[in-house]
Amino acid sequence: MATRRGNLMSVRDDIRLLDATLRDGGLCNNFKFSTEFVRALYKTNIKSGVDYMEFGYKADPDLFDEKEFGPWKFCREEDLRAIVGENISDMKIAVMADVGRCNFRRDFVPKSESVIDMVRVACYVHQMPAALEMIEHLHGLGYETACNIMAVTQAGAGQIDEALAMLNASPVDVIYLVDSYGALYPENASALAITYLESVEKVGKKIGFHAHNNQNLAFANTIDTLSRGVSFLDATVQGIGRGAGNCATELLLGFLKNPKYNLYSILTFIEQYMIPLREEVTWGYDLQFMFTGQLNRHPREALSFTAEGRGDYCTFYKELLDHE
Amino acid sequence: MATRRGNLMSVRDDIRLLDATLRDGGLCNNFKFSTEFVRALYKTNIKSGVDYMEFGYKADPDLFDEKEFGPWKFCREEDLRAIVGENISDMKIAVMADVGRCNFRRDFVPKSESVIDMVRVACYVHQMPAALEMIEHLHGLGYETACNIMAVTQAGAGQIDEALAMLNASPVDVIYLVDSYGALYPENASALAITYLESVEKVGKKIGFHAHNNQNLAFANTIDTLSRGVSFLDATVQGIGRGAGNCATELLLGFLKNPKYNLYSILTFIEQYMIPLREEVTWGYDLQFMFTGQLNRHPREALSFTAEGRGDYCTFYKELLDHE
Repeated sequence: MATRRGNLMSVRDDIRLLDATLRDGGLCNNFKFSTEFVRALYKTNIKSGVDYMEFGYKADPDLFDEKEFGPWKFCREEDLRAIVGENISDMKIAVMADVGRCNFRRDFVPKSESVIDMVRVACYVHQMPAALEMIEHLHGLGYETACNIMAVTQAGAGQIDEALAMLNASPVDVIYLVDSYGALYPENASALAITYLESVEKVGKKIGFHAHNNQNLAFANTIDTLSRGVSFLDATVQGIGRGAGNCATELLLGFLKNPKYNLYSILTFIEQYMIPLREEVTWGYDLQFMFTGQLNRHPREALSFTAEGRGDYCTFYKELLDHE
Repeated sequence: MATRRGNLMSVRDDIRLLDATLRDGGLCNNFKFSTEFVRALYKTNIKSGVDYMEFGYKADPDLFDEKEFGPWKFCREEDLRAIVGENISDMKIAVMADVGRCNFRRDFVPKSESVIDMVRVACYVHQMPAALEMIEHLHGLGYETACNIMAVTQAGAGQIDEALAMLNASPVDVIYLVDSYGALYPENASALAITYLESVEKVGKKIGFHAHNNQNLAFANTIDTLSRGVSFLDATVQGIGRGAGNCATELLLGFLKNPKYNLYSILTFIEQYMIPLREEVTWGYDLQFMFTGQLNRHPREALSFTAEGRGDYCTFYKELLDHE
């Protein structure tokens, strides 16, 4: 498993590119994307060869005030259909559901009545039993399921092994390695990916990778874990996402060799929609996020630093060290 | 050689961090840094544990109009001494000299009369004979020497082997793998680094890596080649450099485990000098530079695109493809 799977010239037909622009980008603007933006992104993703488009969260409206958020915080069936109709494209539709933040028994209809194809269940490692309950229910409804175990760089090695064993005994289709804090280097991202890959080898599940760009390594970590055998790759257009953001789709499309992937369509979307969006919404690599990545910490203080318009990086860095 | 040298927790005492802020950053502003900026950077580098500080080029004043450039295009002895005195610090002073753009027989004094410690000779692979002439002369004067072979991603594999053989027979101390176009991924950067390392194994020379950030991989490629055994690492503060820029010193300092390296001093310099500089000078990762990196091309068209203030990325991308 220490060798690479495929090489820099070849195509791997197990690769699945998942666009998380609305879901992770929505964390920057409370999911307030215009309908035009979402529709253009949907068409662009189809043309670009994206395999899954994640529209947002399936959050519980009892817990979150619908006036404060755009529709992609909740991903109601009617809002999805207003964009995708019956989604006659080959691209699959995904939504994310956080353990403890959604009413999954009430808010998911059977797959036969839904345009959603895949539900990604996000949880912390201590929430595995609740995640498994959701996965089993959603699998029973007919959905593809993925589990995104967050913040694994703060979990003990034993915990990850236990979580993987529990997921291997479940009907989940894809298990995601998530670098929540952007703390991983390619070397240890790949070591973790190999742990995940070896764990699922006998049960035939797929492994995904979700990067964060705190140390400007989102793309590097994505292609390094990919080269070890990870097949589900998350990316967002221009790396949009909370804080330092994610792996940029345009970088990944330049790397993937399958001719079904097309960079040019994404460029037209960037020019028309993302460049203007940058006037309103801030994201991307910056020193404050580098600090929290280097320190393997949640970016919350860095997000406050940004929101307050602070520029006193040295003082902020000392504050972080004081709170170690 | 396919394994890694050292690990993510340990210190490697062969590592040498070279700050190329003035030299590569000078390409963004014609080397017009204030004396205060240069003096502050010198003091900062010493405090941060930087091993070599490259002040700029030793360009031939007969070829370049001195009115158009700041002093660090020429690195005269008196200008260096105005900053460093006799340089009583442990940090060494480096300058770069381009084959064909310097009068090395006239403009270098014997090392015993100079504050310069190392001269880095930059050349294309077809200029090796001229580079070797310079290296031998400079070695004879008493300097440490390095050779930066540029644009190797466009050279044939045979050419690189021949250049390495020629350098191995020379007195050069360090051979640099240079990703001039930012076209390398960590996987092939490391494969090339291993070629360089294996080549010099018997003659005991050191290998360096100089990245460019066109695909946001400058830091990733630097730490991946480092992990294979590369020991001289180029970086610039905030990644300043022509076009997409370089590996950021602050990212590398967060990675290096030797306690002699200190991130905080660099942060104070960034806050006081680099953030204001960003108001006047533009550099860093952007789509136009990503294109030339993906296409393994010189960034000249992307630099023009930037200088003209263009934002029509799609048109530009098509122009690039037309000129393939």
